[in-house]
Amino acid sequence: MRSKPEACSRRIDSVQFPIIPAIAQKIRQTPGTISLGQGVVYYGPPQQALNRIAGFLENPDHHKYGAVQGLPELRAAIAEKLSRANRIDLARSEVVVTAGSNMGFYHTVLAIGDPGDEFIIADPYYFNHEMAIRMAGCRPVSVPVGGDYQLQPERIAAAVSPRTKAIVTISPNNPTGAVYSEENLRAINELCLRQGIYHISDEAYEYFIYGSKPHFSPASIPGASAHTISLFSLSKAYGFASWRVGYMVIPAGLLDAISKIQDTVLICPPVISQFAALGALDAGLGYFQSKFGQIEAMRSELLTRLAEMGDFVEAPVSEGAFYILLKVRTRIDDLTLVDRLIRRYRVAVVPGSAFGIRQGCYLRVAYGALDRHSAEAGAGRLVDGIRGLISAG
Amino acid sequence: MRSKPEACSRRIDSVQFPIIPAIAQKIRQTPGTISLGQGVVYYGPPQQALNRIAGFLENPDHHKYGAVQGLPELRAAIAEKLSRANRIDLARSEVVVTAGSNMGFYHTVLAIGDPGDEFIIADPYYFNHEMAIRMAGCRPVSVPVGGDYQLQPERIAAAVSPRTKAIVTISPNNPTGAVYSEENLRAINELCLRQGIYHISDEAYEYFIYGSKPHFSPASIPGASAHTISLFSLSKAYGFASWRVGYMVIPAGLLDAISKIQDTVLICPPVISQFAALGALDAGLGYFQSKFGQIEAMRSELLTRLAEMGDFVEAPVSEGAFYILLKVRTRIDDLTLVDRLIRRYRVAVVPGSAFGIRQGCYLRVAYGALDRHSAEAGAGRLVDGIRGLISAG
Repeated sequence: MRSKPEACSRRIDSVQFPIIPAIAQKIRQTPGTISLGQGVVYYGPPQQALNRIAGFLENPDHHKYGAVQGLPELRAAIAEKLSRANRIDLARSEVVVTAGSNMGFYHTVLAIGDPGDEFIIADPYYFNHEMAIRMAGCRPVSVPVGGDYQLQPERIAAAVSPRTKAIVTISPNNPTGAVYSEENLRAINELCLRQGIYHISDEAYEYFIYGSKPHFSPASIPGASAHTISLFSLSKAYGFASWRVGYMVIPAGLLDAISKIQDTVLICPPVISQFAALGALDAGLGYFQSKFGQIEAMRSELLTRLAEMGDFVEAPVSEGAFYILLKVRTRIDDLTLVDRLIRRYRVAVVPGSAFGIRQGCYLRVAYGALDRHSAEAGAGRLVDGIRGLISAG
Repeated sequence: MRSKPEACSRRIDSVQFPIIPAIAQKIRQTPGTISLGQGVVYYGPPQQALNRIAGFLENPDHHKYGAVQGLPELRAAIAEKLSRANRIDLARSEVVVTAGSNMGFYHTVLAIGDPGDEFIIADPYYFNHEMAIRMAGCRPVSVPVGGDYQLQPERIAAAVSPRTKAIVTISPNNPTGAVYSEENLRAINELCLRQGIYHISDEAYEYFIYGSKPHFSPASIPGASAHTISLFSLSKAYGFASWRVGYMVIPAGLLDAISKIQDTVLICPPVISQFAALGALDAGLGYFQSKFGQIEAMRSELLTRLAEMGDFVEAPVSEGAFYILLKVRTRIDDLTLVDRLIRRYRVAVVPGSAFGIRQGCYLRVAYGALDRHSAEAGAGRLVDGIRGLISAG
């Protein structure tokens, strides 16, 4: 007689505990903390999105399950955007709406990977990608980015094995803020074609670009659609985080597999959120642009303050997303530093180890959710905190 | 050089194609078809749920990610309901809100099962349960119910192996409509305790009971909370299908595992839907009861018409959910019969093979979504169709 079941499966035991909720808890324990932690913007959805709620409520059938793949009207609007803005030819592809883009990634791993299969990700990686791969019983193979946080295609090519199912790229990148060069993204896509594996291109931050390098969608390469899976999100650009709407572009041959998974895990994406998403796409890029100026200003504020720190920290110029990945010159480990920054200086950032960084003390600083006041105060606390703690430690 | 990646993973290839979207497509091809197919009710959420939208929109922070485990206020309201209505002691348990109860089941399988582990389900089973188990690389072990569609605890006990992780029960049942006896549910829960495995109790249809047997929650048994996982849904009782809100009660020791999965797959349940759910729980059982009369009437209509068919069909009395699982006395296979019912008689039902029935021709008839007119017309077409097709076939 066993008294009690074992705690949890080995596969889930091998997955790291989610960092964002862990930091959120520390923040709650230290009231007044300014969060430069979570990847979220300061604004909500456009009025056009909220205006769609009335139309949703008008028809009682809208409360019943919607289509597994997403509402046809929303898929049509997304397809139009993908053709126009991303220049993706959808002739042999399918658009699937998901409850957020994390879900699109997880669906993809399940759909193309069997236990033991490998997925190549960058080091540092986005933690939920690594967690999804492990959760699916697959193996994350991480390949270091260069000193400029750019991809190193030749090192990635060397990491491909007979078990590799896909190479994952995120551009603009989480956690580094790097915008990958078109040249490197093309090289990766070509490598995937040659190797008969998939290229998973996460483009959640496609509009968040500060430099002159434009966003590039690998699926726009002629002939790429049969081996490219592109992931997009409304959470960031349209202030939609809590509504849970993302979408994926997949080779048509994967639709049955993705449908099985979505039907089993979710049945359908939340329909009220899909109605709102239709309104957001109507508002379009103009809405994003009206909000982006403040994020650019927050970034400048932060970069100016960080520059004052001279030798204490270094970071290649981040040209995208709303992240800066700082290398801090200290022997204090990142978890301790983050803990002290919260407790003593009331400012929260995410430790590099959450992104798989094993050597050196790195901090991800997120500035999308700030207003002028919190940006000034947050940057000040971060600078004072790092200086104070390193000098003391 | 491989030209193109393999279509999909072996694990997903082994999963059946979702039946509901397949039938929905057939229905679209035959306009005017009355659906007795999908498990959905005829009504939407209560006004109190919709009234919560204004409160959601009031605070811009509500558009940011919510707590992984669900909104604290909603979890508190759910906890109150679980203690009061289900008599579940939550002292050592946690409530987690999910984007629908299917997700709660899938999370559970991942959290407690490793590839090759076994989950005991009833035969016939709910298709999404079987699909979730396979998708996770685990093995569904199905144990036939009795002629009265009740559980057979001694057969279930005999099916437990060293790889068994859990026994799954659904009461009231999908697809049979059976309400399991408290005695049998206690026997299963006791068996799980003795074997050191989990009891997964799916209670999505808890309120849909026609007979005198009350609903019984196995987690209400003293000492059951450490090995019982209970799944609930707002989709059915509160007309919430498209909003995607369910919840699970788990042993506290599983919270980390479930949090990892939810963070990776979903980040958080849609927050606007959680606000609406708060209003639905406020409206409470009174709202459900105001709607249930019509479903009872539809059921009577359907049973009366089916009784006229005499020898053509048989079904034990279904006392719960809104399903009747009909055995049709014919050599026509169920898929052909369903196809002909749609094309020739414009009435849709779900074939028994979707629930794992390999012998005999069974049809699941769902009557939750009907109004008086469609119930009369739908029952008429079904009776005429079965008679006509069997006599002809």
